[in-house]
Amino acid sequence: MKKILVINGPNLNLLGEREPAVYGDNSLEKINAKISDSAKSLGFETDFFQSNSEGALIDRLHEARLDCAGVILNAGAYTHYSYAIRDAISAIKIPVIEVHLSNVDSREEFRKTSVIAPVCKGSISGFGEYSYLLALDALKFLL
Amino acid sequence: MKKILVINGPNLNLLGEREPAVYGDNSLEKINAKISDSAKSLGFETDFFQSNSEGALIDRLHEARLDCAGVILNAGAYTHYSYAIRDAISAIKIPVIEVHLSNVDSREEFRKTSVIAPVCKGSISGFGEYSYLLALDALKFLL
Amino acid sequence: MKKILVINGPNLNLLGEREPAVYGDNSLEKINAKISDSAKSLGFETDFFQSNSEGALIDRLHEARLDCAGVILNAGAYTHYSYAIRDAISAIKIPVIEVHLSNVDSREEFRKTSVIAPVCKGSISGFGEYSYLLALDALKFLL
Amino acid sequence: MKKILVINGPNLNLLGEREPAVYGDNSLEKINAKISDSAKSLGFETDFFQSNSEGALIDRLHEARLDCAGVILNAGAYTHYSYAIRDAISAIKIPVIEVHLSNVDSREEFRKTSVIAPVCKGSISGFGEYSYLLALDALKFLL
Amino acid sequence: MKKILVINGPNLNLLGEREPAVYGDNSLEKINAKISDSAKSLGFETDFFQSNSEGALIDRLHEARLDCAGVILNAGAYTHYSYAIRDAISAIKIPVIEVHLSNVDSREEFRKTSVIAPVCKGSISGFGEYSYLLALDALKFLL
Amino acid sequence: MKKILVINGPNLNLLGEREPAVYGDNSLEKINAKISDSAKSLGFETDFFQSNSEGALIDRLHEARLDCAGVILNAGAYTHYSYAIRDAISAIKIPVIEVHLSNVDSREEFRKTSVIAPVCKGSISGFGEYSYLLALDALKFLL
Amino acid sequence: MKKILVINGPNLNLLGEREPAVYGDNSLEKINAKISDSAKSLGFETDFFQSNSEGALIDRLHEARLDCAGVILNAGAYTHYSYAIRDAISAIKIPVIEVHLSNVDSREEFRKTSVIAPVCKGSISGFGEYSYLLALDALKFLL
Amino acid sequence: MKKILVINGPNLNLLGEREPAVYGDNSLEKINAKISDSAKSLGFETDFFQSNSEGALIDRLHEARLDCAGVILNAGAYTHYSYAIRDAISAIKIPVIEVHLSNVDSREEFRKTSVIAPVCKGSISGFGEYSYLLALDALKFLL
Amino acid sequence: MKKILVINGPNLNLLGEREPAVYGDNSLEKINAKISDSAKSLGFETDFFQSNSEGALIDRLHEARLDCAGVILNAGAYTHYSYAIRDAISAIKIPVIEVHLSNVDSREEFRKTSVIAPVCKGSISGFGEYSYLLALDALKFLL
Amino acid sequence: MKKILVINGPNLNLLGEREPAVYGDNSLEKINAKISDSAKSLGFETDFFQSNSEGALIDRLHEARLDCAGVILNAGAYTHYSYAIRDAISAIKIPVIEVHLSNVDSREEFRKTSVIAPVCKGSISGFGEYSYLLALDALKFLL
Amino acid sequence: MKKILVINGPNLNLLGEREPAVYGDNSLEKINAKISDSAKSLGFETDFFQSNSEGALIDRLHEARLDCAGVILNAGAYTHYSYAIRDAISAIKIPVIEVHLSNVDSREEFRKTSVIAPVCKGSISGFGEYSYLLALDALKFLL
Amino acid sequence: MKKILVINGPNLNLLGEREPAVYGDNSLEKINAKISDSAKSLGFETDFFQSNSEGALIDRLHEARLDCAGVILNAGAYTHYSYAIRDAISAIKIPVIEVHLSNVDSREEFRKTSVIAPVCKGSISGFGEYSYLLALDALKFLL
Repeated sequence: MKKILVINGPNLNLLGEREPAVYGDNSLEKINAKISDSAKSLGFETDFFQSNSEGALIDRLHEARLDCAGVILNAGAYTHYSYAIRDAISAIKIPVIEVHLSNVDSREEFRKTSVIAPVCKGSISGFGEYSYLLALDALKFLL
Repeated sequence: MKKILVINGPNLNLLGEREPAVYGDNSLEKINAKISDSAKSLGFETDFFQSNSEGALIDRLHEARLDCAGVILNAGAYTHYSYAIRDAISAIKIPVIEVHLSNVDSREEFRKTSVIAPVCKGSISGFGEYSYLLALDALKFLL
Repeated sequence: MKKILVINGPNLNLLGEREPAVYGDNSLEKINAKISDSAKSLGFETDFFQSNSEGALIDRLHEARLDCAGVILNAGAYTHYSYAIRDAISAIKIPVIEVHLSNVDSREEFRKTSVIAPVCKGSISGFGEYSYLLALDALKFLL
Repeated sequence: MKKILVINGPNLNLLGEREPAVYGDNSLEKINAKISDSAKSLGFETDFFQSNSEGALIDRLHEARLDCAGVILNAGAYTHYSYAIRDAISAIKIPVIEVHLSNVDSREEFRKTSVIAPVCKGSISGFGEYSYLLALDALKFLL
Repeated sequence: MKKILVINGPNLNLLGEREPAVYGDNSLEKINAKISDSAKSLGFETDFFQSNSEGALIDRLHEARLDCAGVILNAGAYTHYSYAIRDAISAIKIPVIEVHLSNVDSREEFRKTSVIAPVCKGSISGFGEYSYLLALDALKFLL
Repeated sequence: MKKILVINGPNLNLLGEREPAVYGDNSLEKINAKISDSAKSLGFETDFFQSNSEGALIDRLHEARLDCAGVILNAGAYTHYSYAIRDAISAIKIPVIEVHLSNVDSREEFRKTSVIAPVCKGSISGFGEYSYLLALDALKFLL
Repeated sequence: MKKILVINGPNLNLLGEREPAVYGDNSLEKINAKISDSAKSLGFETDFFQSNSEGALIDRLHEARLDCAGVILNAGAYTHYSYAIRDAISAIKIPVIEVHLSNVDSREEFRKTSVIAPVCKGSISGFGEYSYLLALDALKFLL
Repeated sequence: MKKILVINGPNLNLLGEREPAVYGDNSLEKINAKISDSAKSLGFETDFFQSNSEGALIDRLHEARLDCAGVILNAGAYTHYSYAIRDAISAIKIPVIEVHLSNVDSREEFRKTSVIAPVCKGSISGFGEYSYLLALDALKFLL
Repeated sequence: MKKILVINGPNLNLLGEREPAVYGDNSLEKINAKISDSAKSLGFETDFFQSNSEGALIDRLHEARLDCAGVILNAGAYTHYSYAIRDAISAIKIPVIEVHLSNVDSREEFRKTSVIAPVCKGSISGFGEYSYLLALDALKFLL
Repeated sequence: MKKILVINGPNLNLLGEREPAVYGDNSLEKINAKISDSAKSLGFETDFFQSNSEGALIDRLHEARLDCAGVILNAGAYTHYSYAIRDAISAIKIPVIEVHLSNVDSREEFRKTSVIAPVCKGSISGFGEYSYLLALDALKFLL
Repeated sequence: MKKILVINGPNLNLLGEREPAVYGDNSLEKINAKISDSAKSLGFETDFFQSNSEGALIDRLHEARLDCAGVILNAGAYTHYSYAIRDAISAIKIPVIEVHLSNVDSREEFRKTSVIAPVCKGSISGFGEYSYLLALDALKFLL
Repeated sequence: MKKILVINGPNLNLLGEREPAVYGDNSLEKINAKISDSAKSLGFETDFFQSNSEGALIDRLHEARLDCAGVILNAGAYTHYSYAIRDAISAIKIPVIEVHLSNVDSREEFRKTSVIAPVCKGSISGFGEYSYLLALDALKFLL
């Protein structure tokens, strides 16, 4: 059974508590549970990782190249400036899908730039937690 | 049965023929057929519209507010400069989802700006024709 | 009796329905009726045209040079990027007055640029439907 | 009888003498007389103020909040950089209308930016001295 | 006999009448007649199309791929912002030559940018109606 | 007893009345009284000056070099463009502390630039009237 | 007794040793001791944290929301680009005050931008170690 | 005998005292005396004016049009942003020469822009007080 | 017989050898021979000049004003920054036509700017060596 | 024997595996072995450190000031935005040499900016693993 | 007797012939004769050099350091981009004065930038040939 | 024996004399002698060329393609704007290494841009005359 890694970046550990109007009421744990269920029904095993550290996110992306078939990545605010994460995505050969809970383009100006988008396979944003489930489906299609 | 309108903008009538390496081999008709099938299985009726004219796209968006529950919109190159289409999306109250076949962020610089994204519900790009199917699923979730 | 052409661009056909807080409650028809009445009292005949199509707006501007004494133009979102409409205004010799319902400078950044203003005679914005009536008065003065 | 304050900023005391091709042949006194007449016919009392000093213009705007129903403001070159005048307009609660004699958008690049427009009710430019009369009419409508 | 399509964009229907100092005294009909004659002498059949509508120009470019050997395109003001026309040129495989009557680089700043130039075969500007004849000659050379 | 000069720039005379949500309910007089009391307890004499005129503010800064030990300066909107006030601060040798009532960085874009900050000793913003009291304390520390 | 967290970001562990002309001679330990004393006299308990890691700073900000009443944050160079720290500040509900030892506006161009300032309560800079003591006082006022 | 007006803008009243390394040791009075002497020897009468107020400088420029043959203007920091002074120079018909004591181009970035230079006859900078004497000489040549 | 000067700028002496995919296989000598033949058939005498030196190109342009009827100029990379060559073109009164072998707009970003285009009569690019022959033809038309 | 620290930043742990066309086939271990050998022959001891974490890189730079004579730093993508690493380099007094495997200037636009270069002693890029050996040699020269 | 070198850059050899409305009717020879006379009366010997070649201008500046007391430099269009000439001015220790015939700030946008001004002693522009004589006078003062 | 050409651009003939604090005390002759010695020990013959003329540098680069194995190029200030030299480097097939004596990134803003770097093999800067010796070593490695 192919394994999909779901990575959440900075501040996403506070989901459910942080600005619920923007990010929804569910905790990351609950969202991960839903992703896990949905993945199973698509024939995927899932692994979850959250960190506020840019370096830890890069380390985990590197590891993923050894045992995962694809990555769903919500890089949080690192999306907008982490060329190091961008390089990590380029360096591994498995498909990475960029995901955002909110419609980032309708928020602050700085959120309109994604430095990682050019090296991801595709991008899904604006559907709350459902963005992750759509990404799973997309990976199903790609693999 | 709720109706979903699928709108394709300029040059998408040439799908299958135009730069297949970027846009895939399928014609718009074949893609629309797949969308129609998938929509049925989700309980949606579908309507399809393609035009190379900015004004015609706006006209069709306006009409959609009367009898459609949601819109899947691939605005083609108008994505990057049509503030008139943006205003049309704001003016109607039904959800509009931005879709792109290719990963627009990995192409020319001008394709990184979407003037319509801030007023769409969400955005899906990079999965070829499957982007439309994911958008259908997303509308299912939103409605 | 001199004829004045009143042109409304994209999305203005939805007036009254679209974001009433910004654009007011009256439909375009009602506004046009008021303009017509006011014009008569100033000794003008009026003609009305609305289109969402950039090309149709240009066509109408061209025709106006043959039988109209002046134009009141609310180019909607085309105001911000249509150099083609700008060229049409330069190409005809009758005075064109730029009109906006809302105070465009107090809204999104992109609305602060008018590419047509430099070739119009003058500009009036921010007074809702009354902007058109002021423009009529201004044309009275100019002609 | 409601009082309207007409404020003219820097260099407008030289009207009639300064670049008549751009600004017209009439002196400020003559223009003010016309405004006064027109105001009376609309049921307004008028007060006039001209200064080349940014601070004096702000002082006068402040005072206006106590006894005027509205302000017609031609801020001259301060239009393009006086954030202090902008703050004064925001600070008082009566409507302020931005007026220009010439079509500022068709002149030098720096004249295309108005830092006060976002906090004014509306803006009228390009009709010479008639711009003031239109502004009076607009205030009549607003009040 | 190979067919060459000559496309003229917005406002070029007013040639001869519009700013003759910039664009010359000849009407589009007269210029087309000259092009037609010159084309015959080079062994080409010609077809002519003018529209003020971006969408119609795209439609005609698409059709051209079926029965024309090359296109001479004066896109008028769309030259400066129509990424949709740019995509249409990329999508068809026949050579397209960009033509301008005036020396666009010596006019307003916005006319210095051509978004279609990068996907055309070559570009000719500044020679009035003779620009079209040079383009014909260039197509002769390319085909 | 050392004297501290407290200077308030344009529109700050309207404190208490002007946008209380942003600037608080207290009048400048009341705030000055609090500053005066606090200063006394720190062993300072105080002098207060408010003007809407850039020139008057410069004049007062110049005078301060003769009999004051330090200046607390809220330059209002002049903060963002008055290089003349900046030069005045450089020209006098006593320490000047920049103060703002609101958190200027969280407001309009133009408020993020302070042209005077580089020549002030330090800067305090966002604490309402308490910003002045903190500045007094800071001057106590510096002198 | 309310607890205040004092966070110092990258390179501030070298205080006293690093460029003393800019940052002063005191070590971070000595400064923290002074802050601790001053806090006690204001009725606050203090906690101190320094890290060179962006992720660790975010982790600590998150924890602070559980047991601290406010945060004094000198984010060092992260001030200028860490949108992730900015999001962390937004995500927690307690007040955060931005502090800098030096007058950052009088140094290199890149130091003039603070991406965290818009989400902090207020900002104090330029008073060396005394900046922290002023921030304590400000928190006293806010809480 | 023709009269020349010498105008000095903000902070130039502190000459001799303010940053002598940049601006020299002489007071404005001493410099004016030298200018007066030199002017006499060239057959000019002189008048001197200094103000820190933008409005007062404009007022004085206006007056000069009535009784002066030319103006030597050191607008100090207003040089870099006062479009109002620029308009005053345009409005009067006598020649104005821009003068600076220091070589403004070798100092801060903002000092490289002169908004008044385009409407002055010529510009002289970098020769300390001798810049004024050269300007006198230049006026002698122009008149 | 009128004389046409053909000037080639930096690196064009390596034609045929340098990046043949971009610039073609023919040496400059062969291309010049073709131009010479074509010119004769149009009734022109030709003169050829190539230099890698900006100064030498300017010298040669100056001389051309004395005995040439027109100039065909491929300024190579100087096209993008040599305001000195631009001034030389302005200074001579004979028509100069800008020519490029490749479609410069489809290459690196810096090649999209031509500082000489605004002062040339017209511009032809993208047709390889045939660009020169079209320019000859254009000169025939202009003279 | 003096010790040289060789620091490699994000993603360089994947050398040999990651995009070999750009970065070469050798693993970081093999490269380090070569550096170690070369260092010995120059009379240097070497220490090696790689991390994907910005904070860990800063920590290691700090430590180096205690026992190393110089640092060779390939900061990977952090080169382009880590002002925190820049500050760390400024804070330590030993020479740091910037090294890159590839010619960063010939790649993506964002790689042309190095925020650390201004505070390094020198910079070497484009020679693959040999860049490190040249840096060793350079340190030999500097120490 | 001290020697002054007068250097004229590109296109200034055409003085008198080139755009006389901008640059005057006198040839460079005549202007140089006037300069020579004026210099004698100030006790200076003069040397004159004109070249269209950037390299030749640099060579001549270098030589000047050996036998000249000062340089008057009209660098023509090189003023706007020649960092090489700027470096040459920095490299020699004698004073260099920047001179322009016309008021460069009132012409094209690109002429507003002088890359050599920051390393010259002073600058004089706008007085036609008299600019050179003023520069001589200024050198007299400086030496 | 392979020949290496060492090219020095504008102002480098003044080495030893010009700003020794930045560029060192040695004359270009002495540095060349050291390079020559070092080259011999690496088995290279050397040729040296210095010119202040952009054209002469291009000519010499062209010649080098015929008899040199590699080039070490210090293009001086031409580094920052000479697209003509850039094209010359692209046009020849031998490796060119960019060298600078000083750390150009730590100096003026304009020195941070190298237009030639993208077409050189690699770049070495900041090690004074030793930069040339490292470049020799690098060429040894590359060839």
